[in-house]
Amino acid sequence: MGEFDLIARYFTRPVRRAALGVGDDCALLAPAPGMQLAVSSDMLVEGRHFFADVDPEALGHKALAVNLSDLGACGARPLAFTLALSLPRVDEPWLAGFSRGLLALADSHGCELVGGDTTQGPLNLCITVFGEVPAGQALLRSGARAGDDIYVSGTLGDARLALEALLGHQQIAPDLLAATRQRLERPTPRVALGLALRGVASSAMDLSDGLLGDLSHILQASRVGARIDTSLTSALMAHRNAVADPELLRQCTLAGGDDYELAFTAPPVQRAAVAAAAQASQTPVARIGVIEAEPGLRLVDGQGRPVENRYASFDHFG
Amino acid sequence: MGEFDLIARYFTRPVRRAALGVGDDCALLAPAPGMQLAVSSDMLVEGRHFFADVDPEALGHKALAVNLSDLGACGARPLAFTLALSLPRVDEPWLAGFSRGLLALADSHGCELVGGDTTQGPLNLCITVFGEVPAGQALLRSGARAGDDIYVSGTLGDARLALEALLGHQQIAPDLLAATRQRLERPTPRVALGLALRGVASSAMDLSDGLLGDLSHILQASRVGARIDTSLTSALMAHRNAVADPELLRQCTLAGGDDYELAFTAPPVQRAAVAAAAQASQTPVARIGVIEAEPGLRLVDGQGRPVENRYASFDHFG
Repeated sequence: MGEFDLIARYFTRPVRRAALGVGDDCALLAPAPGMQLAVSSDMLVEGRHFFADVDPEALGHKALAVNLSDLGACGARPLAFTLALSLPRVDEPWLAGFSRGLLALADSHGCELVGGDTTQGPLNLCITVFGEVPAGQALLRSGARAGDDIYVSGTLGDARLALEALLGHQQIAPDLLAATRQRLERPTPRVALGLALRGVASSAMDLSDGLLGDLSHILQASRVGARIDTSLTSALMAHRNAVADPELLRQCTLAGGDDYELAFTAPPVQRAAVAAAAQASQTPVARIGVIEAEPGLRLVDGQGRPVENRYASFDHFG
Repeated sequence: MGEFDLIARYFTRPVRRAALGVGDDCALLAPAPGMQLAVSSDMLVEGRHFFADVDPEALGHKALAVNLSDLGACGARPLAFTLALSLPRVDEPWLAGFSRGLLALADSHGCELVGGDTTQGPLNLCITVFGEVPAGQALLRSGARAGDDIYVSGTLGDARLALEALLGHQQIAPDLLAATRQRLERPTPRVALGLALRGVASSAMDLSDGLLGDLSHILQASRVGARIDTSLTSALMAHRNAVADPELLRQCTLAGGDDYELAFTAPPVQRAAVAAAAQASQTPVARIGVIEAEPGLRLVDGQGRPVENRYASFDHFG
């Protein structure tokens, strides 16, 4: 099977919303009047972002999910994406599983595959995703202000626990591994919440490298600091009761990575609006701290006592 | 140097035309009213698309050039691009050269780097490029009609000669290698020609895998056939006098790959307009054949006698 047969069999479907899809030199997109186009690219590399033996259907899901998560963090509605794929060889069962997982998530968000590239080489997936957002309404990292509440959606840390187990750093029960592995391999992009937070949140981003490290980007972009209550973040791990070591619990929830939840800020007057956005999008949201004028990130426990910040973020060249 | 320092040092510049550039979850683009956005992705893999010892500045140029070439083939004006980069390690001299070559070409086309991703892994470059084109005016592959002239811009085959020499398949003089290697490593995207051909050409595409193979995509999309005069295509190799073997000359010009010229069609009534577009864009253009109603690709020599088509296109999984 050659390159063009591969594209035709696994990645070409009738064009729906785009003006022109797979098979020409370019795809053509036409954002609606008054809309800006939100664009994000993520590259996934074997051994770095996924294990060689990962289920291809889960990988197809995750490759698009991490990109949709960026759209969610901007409050953009998904429109379309391109896929560039480097494969060691044409493995049809793998391609069938991968495209099934990819396109199922794409369909559930009305996000159309409009183009891309395939080539031979070490396994590498690069997706560029396009969404639309009314001009001036995108959620940015730079809008947090002193006094704003800090929120996180969903759960934190379960994906990291699965990763620690898969790397052999932790011994956990098989059913716990199965449950947490779902969070690692099939993250849920918070697109609906991002849309509901337009006009409500003052800043937002998605959590890919760990809460504290990612949050520091909001703090830098907004030139503010923050205080985080670690008793509230620890409570956000779905399987926290399976973690006896409080240090591991903090490691997973504060610096876990691969959560693909949204972290966002909003002024206290918006608390009812945040609750309404959470309900409208059927996404749990928890308040975990407060933005402060003083730069830096301060951790406290449930009684307000300082907690040392030893939780480094994941660095892709670390 | 970590991921974020790397991005800041080599790939972050002040935002110009985009609404929001490098450093948030998404970049924001706003096409002008009435414009469609043309989008294309290309992935370049070490050992497949370039040699491990390639000059990083040339690689930066080529990585963007092959994407701009797709915009040219659609008649779209470059706006912006994202870069996803997988690197084995942080090599600062390499990054300095790569970003210099990349951004010099970007600047010469007014094309802004607005986002992307960096990670550790086998060397892999994925660029997604964005251009704008008035709605309905993009040059497509599907518009060729029987009787249309077939044209190619610039030169053909010199890049392939360099590749054959670098692979050790051909012995050529050092100065010839130096000259042809420029064509292989620093292709010129035909953006100005593509813009000038709006409303003139009936179909267009860019040549990356070899003239005959690439042309077959226009023929399939347009449901037509073609007759090509190989004496005219052979004349398009800049260094044809250095090639004694007529078979090698045809191989290079008909199935060379890496030319990044435009192949396009236009009805005979547009000959003056094609010449004007070539002059306006300062790009040589040559007529090499004609579109026919009968499907298939027929090669003839300068006297109209049939030439056997033994010139397979490059397949990325061949």
